[in-house]
Amino acid sequence: MSNASIHLGPNQYGKAENRVVRIVRDTARHQIRDLNVSTSLRGRFDDAHISGDQQDVLPTDTQKNTVFAYAKKVGVASIEEFALVLADRYLEACPAADGARIEVDEYAWERIEVDGGGHDHSFVRSGGGVRTTVVNVDGRGADRVTQVVSGIKDLVVLKSTGSEFHGFLKDEYTTLQETTDRILATSLVARWRYDALPISKGEVDWDKSYDSIRALLLQRFAEIHSLALQQTLNGMGTSVMEEHDDVAEIKFSAPNKHHFLSDLSPFGLDNPGEVFHAADRPYGLIEASVVRDGATAAGNAWHAIPGFC
Amino acid sequence: MSNASIHLGPNQYGKAENRVVRIVRDTARHQIRDLNVSTSLRGRFDDAHISGDQQDVLPTDTQKNTVFAYAKKVGVASIEEFALVLADRYLEACPAADGARIEVDEYAWERIEVDGGGHDHSFVRSGGGVRTTVVNVDGRGADRVTQVVSGIKDLVVLKSTGSEFHGFLKDEYTTLQETTDRILATSLVARWRYDALPISKGEVDWDKSYDSIRALLLQRFAEIHSLALQQTLNGMGTSVMEEHDDVAEIKFSAPNKHHFLSDLSPFGLDNPGEVFHAADRPYGLIEASVVRDGATAAGNAWHAIPGFC
Amino acid sequence: MSNASIHLGPNQYGKAENRVVRIVRDTARHQIRDLNVSTSLRGRFDDAHISGDQQDVLPTDTQKNTVFAYAKKVGVASIEEFALVLADRYLEACPAADGARIEVDEYAWERIEVDGGGHDHSFVRSGGGVRTTVVNVDGRGADRVTQVVSGIKDLVVLKSTGSEFHGFLKDEYTTLQETTDRILATSLVARWRYDALPISKGEVDWDKSYDSIRALLLQRFAEIHSLALQQTLNGMGTSVMEEHDDVAEIKFSAPNKHHFLSDLSPFGLDNPGEVFHAADRPYGLIEASVVRDGATAAGNAWHAIPGFC
Amino acid sequence: MSNASIHLGPNQYGKAENRVVRIVRDTARHQIRDLNVSTSLRGRFDDAHISGDQQDVLPTDTQKNTVFAYAKKVGVASIEEFALVLADRYLEACPAADGARIEVDEYAWERIEVDGGGHDHSFVRSGGGVRTTVVNVDGRGADRVTQVVSGIKDLVVLKSTGSEFHGFLKDEYTTLQETTDRILATSLVARWRYDALPISKGEVDWDKSYDSIRALLLQRFAEIHSLALQQTLNGMGTSVMEEHDDVAEIKFSAPNKHHFLSDLSPFGLDNPGEVFHAADRPYGLIEASVVRDGATAAGNAWHAIPGFC
Repeated sequence: MSNASIHLGPNQYGKAENRVVRIVRDTARHQIRDLNVSTSLRGRFDDAHISGDQQDVLPTDTQKNTVFAYAKKVGVASIEEFALVLADRYLEACPAADGARIEVDEYAWERIEVDGGGHDHSFVRSGGGVRTTVVNVDGRGADRVTQVVSGIKDLVVLKSTGSEFHGFLKDEYTTLQETTDRILATSLVARWRYDALPISKGEVDWDKSYDSIRALLLQRFAEIHSLALQQTLNGMGTSVMEEHDDVAEIKFSAPNKHHFLSDLSPFGLDNPGEVFHAADRPYGLIEASVVRDGATAAGNAWHAIPGFC
Repeated sequence: MSNASIHLGPNQYGKAENRVVRIVRDTARHQIRDLNVSTSLRGRFDDAHISGDQQDVLPTDTQKNTVFAYAKKVGVASIEEFALVLADRYLEACPAADGARIEVDEYAWERIEVDGGGHDHSFVRSGGGVRTTVVNVDGRGADRVTQVVSGIKDLVVLKSTGSEFHGFLKDEYTTLQETTDRILATSLVARWRYDALPISKGEVDWDKSYDSIRALLLQRFAEIHSLALQQTLNGMGTSVMEEHDDVAEIKFSAPNKHHFLSDLSPFGLDNPGEVFHAADRPYGLIEASVVRDGATAAGNAWHAIPGFC
Repeated sequence: MSNASIHLGPNQYGKAENRVVRIVRDTARHQIRDLNVSTSLRGRFDDAHISGDQQDVLPTDTQKNTVFAYAKKVGVASIEEFALVLADRYLEACPAADGARIEVDEYAWERIEVDGGGHDHSFVRSGGGVRTTVVNVDGRGADRVTQVVSGIKDLVVLKSTGSEFHGFLKDEYTTLQETTDRILATSLVARWRYDALPISKGEVDWDKSYDSIRALLLQRFAEIHSLALQQTLNGMGTSVMEEHDDVAEIKFSAPNKHHFLSDLSPFGLDNPGEVFHAADRPYGLIEASVVRDGATAAGNAWHAIPGFC
Repeated sequence: MSNASIHLGPNQYGKAENRVVRIVRDTARHQIRDLNVSTSLRGRFDDAHISGDQQDVLPTDTQKNTVFAYAKKVGVASIEEFALVLADRYLEACPAADGARIEVDEYAWERIEVDGGGHDHSFVRSGGGVRTTVVNVDGRGADRVTQVVSGIKDLVVLKSTGSEFHGFLKDEYTTLQETTDRILATSLVARWRYDALPISKGEVDWDKSYDSIRALLLQRFAEIHSLALQQTLNGMGTSVMEEHDDVAEIKFSAPNKHHFLSDLSPFGLDNPGEVFHAADRPYGLIEASVVRDGATAAGNAWHAIPGFC
């Protein structure tokens, strides 16, 4: 085949995992936002790839500096707001770019309890999931499209009953026993795309929306009597969509963290759902989504989100 | 908004990370194939999600059993061959599925040296990257499309010279110094899609192709005088495409593992490229691809490959 | 040197990381104890090592089975109680053993909030550290010594002010600037050894003691104005010893998770303790202990605790 | 209990995981030593812990600077030599210290093959274990004791036959089947202490000794027909001691990475040692040592080596 037919394909570059911690210390009662920021640019960078000419390339080191400078200059009202500001800045600073992608994770901290109240400037890292957002901006001026996909990851949940699994398809390799009572556990990743319209109008209260969706996901996981992890996820997602008009779609990636009932019969012991072995690998992996007809198109919203393409 | 507009979106499910080790012991000189197999099915599984009815669902446990049974029944001629056979089997066993995705990683082992020769049945794990493949099958009968994306990951390489970076775009947040001599290091992930035509004809020698591409990637990394990691990747990819007509495209994800020159001037010491601090985070992340005009379309080939969507 | 002088030295063997989950479901309001149990035996196992004769060896597989069977038979009143019972059992079952070591980690779960109350059987994994204990039993009958070292690990804490570091020793390789205001952060491991006497009398309320010590460690971390991580740890440990007579000694391993103040001066920005880079490696590693004169001897208590020998 | 009885116990502090890469570029054919260096000091640091006075404390930041400066000044002849030089330097720079501990890991690189030869300045990370050393120095002048414990870790080895396990002790919790043919696999950590005398005379050729012991460990693992992992380790250790007079003792920590024979009988398939499931947790953990009578005493040699106390 002739070389003429071989050419550069899609590409992007940036600085991953900038670990920026922003302390708000306007009063003695400090606030902390503990972030992991990954940035990238895509666009017309053919020279950088082919001749090695870097004149169009805003270095990843500069992208890093910008993250830290903007954490001071504009602060971190919310991770979504911060990501949107950074995307704007990169497109302004780098004319060859026609798209930017900013991903921000936020680690949660609680105030340490002292004498019944939270301490002013001492914190302990809390669990309960990591908040995350991915902002994608494509194009400039009238053509510009802005997408925000927010979510939560590492949200480890478990039901010790209220979960069944039976009536499934069987073939000659099926040995699984049907059950009407098992442990259901997962380390949930949920990501939801906000509709472009409320974003463009600035109508989304990012922190409030996150808190509300997180609480709803947990509540529905608890309430739904599960016939399969798929059905649980669909129920959780449907509730989020029903209660949040500004969410265009929600996607889940959920490893089924198997808890196998320990067989104690060789030792003359019953085991009615009391002792389990928590297995590592392999694990079921369930991916599901719930979407809204008529929402704005996703475009590049899910670009480069591992496992959510 | 009315609930009528909310409905199930794309979904898939399967068993991830089946750690199957296959020993070939037809003679005293054993062979080992050490695999991590992840399977998934996609299709018309609405009942499972909505009513919880599992009658169309081939359980992930059955998928696991199939992996182990087929490791015995058909063996592992190559990871690509094994993945293709499994995909066929799942579509046969699960009528509701209209697509299957099989990912296989293979860990490399070398024979332990004893008296100048390799031992018959004793092995030591080697480095130098993990071989991987992702097979996607969509549709049945005449409409069926089969895609194979093979690759290597965790291939850690370093050049102690022969790497420059200068002439880049500067803005008010740029502090990076230009350099004509730096360390270039990355933990490379490369994935290449085979053209559908030679696959359908059974013309690809999977093991030979992998060995050849791996060697070529290393050689080109060594030979190319680098003006940027982008340019190195583009050169590596172009060489692969030129020498392998059956490759339709190749994609890279390459963290720029920064090695910062240690500033020893406070101690009265020169440091002409001799002592470096190997940093963890943040890191540059460079993603690039090289494609061939006129190759068959990618379709679902890159579906659900983290970072390569 | 003659071979006669070469012989078997200290050894132990067991089953590590048994991931046992115990559900207490006597009522509709379930309780969960989520454990990682590692067991080992030491003693006169020369035959197993030298001739390969296993007649004295209670297999690690049997040790595993015992963990799961005892989780049912005796339950998990506390991780300390469970470890003590297992140690007894192993010494009973394995006459050649003259010592047993049982390590148990416990992962914390909170009930999911539904309608203002905690759900009966749905849980979310919480952060705030992993509870742990190591029980060592040596000898039998009158010579028997039982040691309990309990603790907490992965307790990530941070002070955004109230931390200084200055007045330190300087040499020709010192470039660190002195500071009267910095972030102090660590991922704390604290382990405390209970005095043998209250253990033998059964006087320790394990759960209550853990909760109390954990709360006190956090409170003192918050309250102490830090002049160095060493001084903070010593203050924390001293408070624990003062308030808990049954603790014979407490040891800490604390990585100083550096948060470097971002230098924003090239961009014309002040940074009065607001924007930090959270670094990964290298990190300071501070190890300290506080002991009580006249407490019972440690013996094998700290045997095989990584980093706490 | 009175506070008078509570006081500071053992402590040490230092800088962990300095990732220093040293390039030797005296000729066009570069050499690379890729290190992870952890340093610590112990001694009379009571003021630092109690009053917070740091005048005796050589900061961990200075320790870090010293690592990088000495990588240039004295170079890295071997990791043992480098650690010995650093220990000397810290004791010289910090009068309050009465002991120093230096741990160095070295990651292996191979030259990339180009046209049948190794490239001058391009390398690929190899597997086959990480070389490591721990140097402890105690005291000064005539009382000074220097200990060197070198080793290898992450050496993953497997035998596909030539391993039995039977004749073990049985109790009511034993379900394990006896076998005369199984897979034996481990991720070996081996550490050996050099005798103090040849060290003090400068008689040990560190690189040669390491290469020889590593090769011998692999060879013996391959050759020994295993009746238990304990017996294999003892055989490996005894061979090292017999062939290396300057080794005073050798210790092993070896997770028994279980490969369970897959039960394919439900599918009408035999499985004569061909298909295995490689399990993650739990795993057997075997710890053994071989010692030489009359060797110099260990003293602090094994201080703070996780799992090898």
